[in-house]
Amino acid sequence: MPEAPPTDEGWFVLHDFRTVDWDAWRAAPEHERDRAVGEGVEYLRTHENVEDADEGASAVFSVLGHKADLLVVHFRPTLDDLSRAERQFERTSLANFTEQTSSYVSVTEISGYVSQDYFEDEDADVDEGLRRYMEGKLHPEIPDDQYVSFYPMSKRRGETHNWYDLPFDDRAEMMSEHGDTGREFAGKIKQVIASSVGFDDHEWGVTLFADDPTDIKDIVYEMRFDEASSKYGEFGEFYVGRRFPPADLGAYLAG
Amino acid sequence: MPEAPPTDEGWFVLHDFRTVDWDAWRAAPEHERDRAVGEGVEYLRTHENVEDADEGASAVFSVLGHKADLLVVHFRPTLDDLSRAERQFERTSLANFTEQTSSYVSVTEISGYVSQDYFEDEDADVDEGLRRYMEGKLHPEIPDDQYVSFYPMSKRRGETHNWYDLPFDDRAEMMSEHGDTGREFAGKIKQVIASSVGFDDHEWGVTLFADDPTDIKDIVYEMRFDEASSKYGEFGEFYVGRRFPPADLGAYLAG
Amino acid sequence: MPEAPPTDEGWFVLHDFRTVDWDAWRAAPEHERDRAVGEGVEYLRTHENVEDADEGASAVFSVLGHKADLLVVHFRPTLDDLSRAERQFERTSLANFTEQTSSYVSVTEISGYVSQDYFEDEDADVDEGLRRYMEGKLHPEIPDDQYVSFYPMSKRRGETHNWYDLPFDDRAEMMSEHGDTGREFAGKIKQVIASSVGFDDHEWGVTLFADDPTDIKDIVYEMRFDEASSKYGEFGEFYVGRRFPPADLGAYLAG
Amino acid sequence: MPEAPPTDEGWFVLHDFRTVDWDAWRAAPEHERDRAVGEGVEYLRTHENVEDADEGASAVFSVLGHKADLLVVHFRPTLDDLSRAERQFERTSLANFTEQTSSYVSVTEISGYVSQDYFEDEDADVDEGLRRYMEGKLHPEIPDDQYVSFYPMSKRRGETHNWYDLPFDDRAEMMSEHGDTGREFAGKIKQVIASSVGFDDHEWGVTLFADDPTDIKDIVYEMRFDEASSKYGEFGEFYVGRRFPPADLGAYLAG
Amino acid sequence: MPEAPPTDEGWFVLHDFRTVDWDAWRAAPEHERDRAVGEGVEYLRTHENVEDADEGASAVFSVLGHKADLLVVHFRPTLDDLSRAERQFERTSLANFTEQTSSYVSVTEISGYVSQDYFEDEDADVDEGLRRYMEGKLHPEIPDDQYVSFYPMSKRRGETHNWYDLPFDDRAEMMSEHGDTGREFAGKIKQVIASSVGFDDHEWGVTLFADDPTDIKDIVYEMRFDEASSKYGEFGEFYVGRRFPPADLGAYLAG
Repeated sequence: MPEAPPTDEGWFVLHDFRTVDWDAWRAAPEHERDRAVGEGVEYLRTHENVEDADEGASAVFSVLGHKADLLVVHFRPTLDDLSRAERQFERTSLANFTEQTSSYVSVTEISGYVSQDYFEDEDADVDEGLRRYMEGKLHPEIPDDQYVSFYPMSKRRGETHNWYDLPFDDRAEMMSEHGDTGREFAGKIKQVIASSVGFDDHEWGVTLFADDPTDIKDIVYEMRFDEASSKYGEFGEFYVGRRFPPADLGAYLAG
Repeated sequence: MPEAPPTDEGWFVLHDFRTVDWDAWRAAPEHERDRAVGEGVEYLRTHENVEDADEGASAVFSVLGHKADLLVVHFRPTLDDLSRAERQFERTSLANFTEQTSSYVSVTEISGYVSQDYFEDEDADVDEGLRRYMEGKLHPEIPDDQYVSFYPMSKRRGETHNWYDLPFDDRAEMMSEHGDTGREFAGKIKQVIASSVGFDDHEWGVTLFADDPTDIKDIVYEMRFDEASSKYGEFGEFYVGRRFPPADLGAYLAG
Repeated sequence: MPEAPPTDEGWFVLHDFRTVDWDAWRAAPEHERDRAVGEGVEYLRTHENVEDADEGASAVFSVLGHKADLLVVHFRPTLDDLSRAERQFERTSLANFTEQTSSYVSVTEISGYVSQDYFEDEDADVDEGLRRYMEGKLHPEIPDDQYVSFYPMSKRRGETHNWYDLPFDDRAEMMSEHGDTGREFAGKIKQVIASSVGFDDHEWGVTLFADDPTDIKDIVYEMRFDEASSKYGEFGEFYVGRRFPPADLGAYLAG
Repeated sequence: MPEAPPTDEGWFVLHDFRTVDWDAWRAAPEHERDRAVGEGVEYLRTHENVEDADEGASAVFSVLGHKADLLVVHFRPTLDDLSRAERQFERTSLANFTEQTSSYVSVTEISGYVSQDYFEDEDADVDEGLRRYMEGKLHPEIPDDQYVSFYPMSKRRGETHNWYDLPFDDRAEMMSEHGDTGREFAGKIKQVIASSVGFDDHEWGVTLFADDPTDIKDIVYEMRFDEASSKYGEFGEFYVGRRFPPADLGAYLAG
Repeated sequence: MPEAPPTDEGWFVLHDFRTVDWDAWRAAPEHERDRAVGEGVEYLRTHENVEDADEGASAVFSVLGHKADLLVVHFRPTLDDLSRAERQFERTSLANFTEQTSSYVSVTEISGYVSQDYFEDEDADVDEGLRRYMEGKLHPEIPDDQYVSFYPMSKRRGETHNWYDLPFDDRAEMMSEHGDTGREFAGKIKQVIASSVGFDDHEWGVTLFADDPTDIKDIVYEMRFDEASSKYGEFGEFYVGRRFPPADLGAYLAG
């Protein structure tokens, strides 16, 4: 029987997508908008200030197109922390001007397809660089001022091509090839993988960060030719945007 | 011709998903919010207090993400009981601040794939432990304070892989293997299976309870490699949340 | 070339699904609610009172879950009668508190797959019992106080399994087997089949009536193992509810 | 390489589906309803009065079920004419009581699958009857007082059965067989085919007219057994209704 | 392993689809409508005036049917420019009367399937005509007064036919054949291809311009018989409309 890979988990993740109610925004008197911006900035700052490995990380992004205007991403040690972060947004008067149109719940995950050493010799002295690399996957830092792409994905269970019916070694080999493609973008793309199996509608959420949005297109396009994606990847909706500092919220809303 | 397995049924089940209208909640004067919380707590307490095998069981859960904020689960002896529970929620002033965005109707079920003894020798003296196990499946207790995952599923009727076209013994063998995977999580995961054939859009609703949400991810992921899931499982939307006592409703809504 | 079976048609059918606007209902003063109940009961009574073969039949059902709260089913000799029934509901003040969220348009149908005698020797003396049976399919009575299940379905036209590409005799044999499964539920389940080819989004609407809702689950589950369903059935949304007399409308809305 | 058939085009077509806001309609004072009916009738009359080959044709239909209440069909020489007709509806006070919930944009089309003479010898003397038949397809008259069925469709490009990968002659033969089935309904069914390739979400829109709605069911059902449909047809949503003269708009809205 | 083609990118693109809230428009006093038209025209003019290769290009189109009434297309050097253009629309009082119902984010792209010279000899002297042709693809001019068709598309990754699993040369040959079909419409159709891989839900957005909308239907239909489309094309929603000068906005809204 095909075996599941060993996995390790880090922070739980909430991708919280919001659209702005621009009609209400235009109609609101200045002091209401000021208050909304003030409480929004305060919420974002407080949540971004947790930045350390014990507490998590948060960031806000502008999003292009009709599917959302804002994306707030929270990494936290527990689902309860995420629930609280989600509800505390609703306590701000900024929430009066936004609607939560989409979201994604997941947990950062590394798997034993590639780094079998890491999983097999838990007590052995694993390479420190590898350990730090894994740590960066489980408790990622969110880069400043970069473009972001988010999409959920699953592995195909088709009648002919069925990821979950393949021997472990075949899957590991494809994931390794996939990793090679990723490494061509080292320094250009930072990738966070989080499992949503049992939590949300696809199996993983993928978040990409880049200084140049063309690199996002290029890595996703190149990877699509990898067997792991071409035969076995099934993709949901894609969102693209850019991180901004909380202090710029007012400017963002002003157009 | 492929034969359907014998089944036994217990309580009917309503999964009642509600989103909170946070704009209305923020705008409401305190006495209205107090009244909504009061009537909400009263509704939940009254429905949770039925807890015994003749009357059913109920519980309320917080839910993460945009698909819902609250999940109220009712187990009851009849569909009429469920209809009443659903409508009585609408009599509370809490309902003013929520919208029913999703739901699932089913009936707890055990089937003769695995425990053929139970079904074949109805009058014979079936092992008392098995009988109690079955009773726990048909009239489940809802664990306190645990995380919950709910998802609907069907068995694939593909052009190549068709569950309903397989001989009984093949299906029984796969279900047995599936049960083995489940047993690896004994003590960590409690699972309630309820049939929705003829009642709702998928064929079963699955509700998982766990102290550690990572166990939810792990069991669903491991099971996906079982032939019963990898080749024959088709899954709907996933919801994740956590049970809370009715008395905490006010705190939940306060953020 | 595969041949279509001969068919005979009876009444046209409208399944009219409505959700209740519970917020408006709670907020309405008592005299408005009384008026809505009064006009609703009057509408339902008038439409149920047509009960004879020349005029049709109507009934109202409570429905579980978020997809609908009420289902009004009308059988009538013409599509114009159905259009009128649909619009006359909108004249009642009950309509102020409901929204039509779904519907299904079809015409009761019997086909020559099984009862080829009935179709082949139109003038010959067909068995009187058969003729009465057919009549009951084309101009059905709606049983009092029973549970109802409604779902639309089509026959698969897959790339491998294509119902419409099979020889008539193969289809007839599968329909005959399907009928045998149905007959196991004689006295427990009453089934109305109506074609929606050219009228609505699936090819047929199926309405099941039962004293015990578990029989609904059982018949649909057992039939799913018949080749006619397992390989060739494609199902839409399922609704489950229970008939109530118009006089109980007020009690239903009161929770 | 498979060849596209030659085609000829006639009028552009807009199917404009509207639901009635019955709550607003009930609540409106009589003079507002009178004005809405008056302006609606005037709009419909003006647009129906264009009836000649240079200008186009229009008609209004009642529609059954929740997907729409009214269908206004416009045939016009240009897309600009259709855009104007669509926007001019919005100038009437009837529009206050309706919402455009669906629509379909297409252009009437005849293709060279069947009538290859018509296309091959453009200057030769084509049979006058054929030319008139073609003219009736490109610039159709809308029959009075008949039932209507509308649905969009595409030709399948499956992994096994791919219409667009078949040799021209195979497609022509299937279309010829399909035409034979249609001719069995000569005098009962009038059919308008319009291409929406590049314009709307399916490849064609089909509009059927009949005195007896059972003929609509019968032709669509019989055609589904034709290879052109059974293996290669993919169908969207179906709408059914009936034409009425503009003067009856008030009666329609009154229930 | 199959290789991705080399690509070059030009402007980022936002297709911004808006529906008009006709009820609000009819109800608004004339001075509000005048102001909305004034600010709308000003917005459109300012954005259209950027027309040069360093700054981008913008245009407004009427759209037929219920999916949208207006389409504003922006080509810009950065995603930030697009975000600003999208938000600045929301600052106009025209936005009070519109809702953003759909959108598409992409970046103009040329690929090395056909013009391998262009990519392989970057420093060599590539034919000047080719270079200008490529430039026109990356920084397109938007033709005045023409009809437009927009649709998103992806390449199929089916279980049998998988574009991403084909050798480069097979893909290049199919794209070359596809290009030949396109060239039959030279002078009639102008086509802009933009990649949305990693940015939006399909892989490319296609925008066609034509003086005669029948040419749009013809090119899409003919191309559907090309192997690149018939076996490997998967298409989303189609929109059709026509460009108009900003000064005509008032006339458009007046019906």
